[in-house]
Amino acid sequence: MPQGNAALPVAVIGLGSMGFGMATSLRQAGLAVTGFDVTAASLARFEQAGGKVAKTPAAAAQGAEIVVSVVVNATQTEEILFGTDGVAPAMSPTGVFISAATMAPEQAKALAARLQAMGRLYLDAPISGGTARAAQGQLTILAAGTPTAFAKARPALAAMAAKVYELGDEPGTGAAFKMINQLLAGVHIAAASEAMAFAARQKLDLHKVYEVITASAGNSWMFENRMPHVLAGDYTPHSAVEIFVKDLGIIQDMARSARFPVPVAASALQMFLATAAIGFARDDDASVARLYAQIGGATLPQPK
Amino acid sequence: MPQGNAALPVAVIGLGSMGFGMATSLRQAGLAVTGFDVTAASLARFEQAGGKVAKTPAAAAQGAEIVVSVVVNATQTEEILFGTDGVAPAMSPTGVFISAATMAPEQAKALAARLQAMGRLYLDAPISGGTARAAQGQLTILAAGTPTAFAKARPALAAMAAKVYELGDEPGTGAAFKMINQLLAGVHIAAASEAMAFAARQKLDLHKVYEVITASAGNSWMFENRMPHVLAGDYTPHSAVEIFVKDLGIIQDMARSARFPVPVAASALQMFLATAAIGFARDDDASVARLYAQIGGATLPQPK
Repeated sequence: MPQGNAALPVAVIGLGSMGFGMATSLRQAGLAVTGFDVTAASLARFEQAGGKVAKTPAAAAQGAEIVVSVVVNATQTEEILFGTDGVAPAMSPTGVFISAATMAPEQAKALAARLQAMGRLYLDAPISGGTARAAQGQLTILAAGTPTAFAKARPALAAMAAKVYELGDEPGTGAAFKMINQLLAGVHIAAASEAMAFAARQKLDLHKVYEVITASAGNSWMFENRMPHVLAGDYTPHSAVEIFVKDLGIIQDMARSARFPVPVAASALQMFLATAAIGFARDDDASVARLYAQIGGATLPQPK
Repeated sequence: MPQGNAALPVAVIGLGSMGFGMATSLRQAGLAVTGFDVTAASLARFEQAGGKVAKTPAAAAQGAEIVVSVVVNATQTEEILFGTDGVAPAMSPTGVFISAATMAPEQAKALAARLQAMGRLYLDAPISGGTARAAQGQLTILAAGTPTAFAKARPALAAMAAKVYELGDEPGTGAAFKMINQLLAGVHIAAASEAMAFAARQKLDLHKVYEVITASAGNSWMFENRMPHVLAGDYTPHSAVEIFVKDLGIIQDMARSARFPVPVAASALQMFLATAAIGFARDDDASVARLYAQIGGATLPQPK
């Protein structure tokens, strides 16, 4: 446990599946954490776990030297910073805002510029790793910001992450790396779903398909991680279809703006959209396989 | 080394990058190998390495108990079996034909039925693993066929492969598994190329992108294996663009015939086709990244 953190006031805004684990990791590192969430249930859960809570983002961030924002997108991040009861005026004038949301690089740049104009520090810090690693303080963080922002953020980064990539001085670079990862992750889930459902259409033994593919050149991190959900017929959301509707949508916007064609990511996005459209938006993203099975006449395993 | 193989006559038809290594592995296991290739240079290379060669497939397979066919597709396999100087009439009446080419399951079934009608055995046995593992006898083989065919083929399989998946009694099942792998592998190369070129378009540090992605959820076997070619600007073919034009083409044919939509594989195929169309057909399949760079205004590393 780092020395001298006992008095360091930290706010965590957003106590969902990721934010709850990150707030818990920060508390376990001895930091003085105050949490906020718009959802009463999330707030109550953190309080029941022994966490200190506040009723507005501003109240949670009052005098905070570090604010960790764990929300879904750029719009929510902007609201937390600059909206009614936002944290920007409330946090310490020498504090750092650590933004974990996935967003386009241009949005990260704009938010950073606006906060820095108020004298506060901004760290562009998208996260990767899922809820289990969030709870263990073992996330990967793709971070970019000034050396001063990094220095100020370090006690929190050390508590939350197993690996912090320092990707440059300019906010937006972390976001850009995250979007490259999301392009690949989204395509790989769609491809895994397409391949697994096509295998089912041919009545191949799907457990054997999983065994062969995970040992072969067709493997991906996502195939290995998501296809057990299909084998079990269990679409309880670990990460929902809507997440990749959002993230592949950001990729499309970025790429169109840059006049850069991304046809493979575009086709994957259409399959996530179709999966959401037939009613699986809030189910696990492996539900793309259920879409393929429905339209292609394949039978996937049912839950036991 | 297995006992009693010294006299077992084996023919290897096709001594290209994979077949040469497989023939060498069979020789090292003590089998009596005779090789054939349509290309004089490939034949000479095997002879110079101490291998015995023949002037036709039939001559190579005369009395062979095992024939290993390592050619590109179903058409070549059919020619080797049943064409002029084909191996089917020449091989031992109790022999087994091991077919390594990637092809549609229906084609494998048809070839097997035709050979079995002559009393010979057929093992549907597509391979995976690349030239280095072929030379070391460390391939993965996705095999299907009768127990008798497996039993007869076993000395050769043991010599060539680190891992033999026994996928069922019916020829065509090995082919089906291989095509599922190729669907994923092809999509992953296209996605890796799309992501890496888009990262270059944003002027991200591509070596850092490689480091981050290979440690993240966006990773794939193909990203990890092929993107070093892009980083080095070296498109010497390890596996050529044409291979995935072929294999994703087979996927399209299979899927269209089954009325099963594969939009992600379809978009990947179009990018391999475009890469071949602008002149990179025989270059390394990571050349898809060069296509994206050209059309999207990105600069990739040049060879040193």
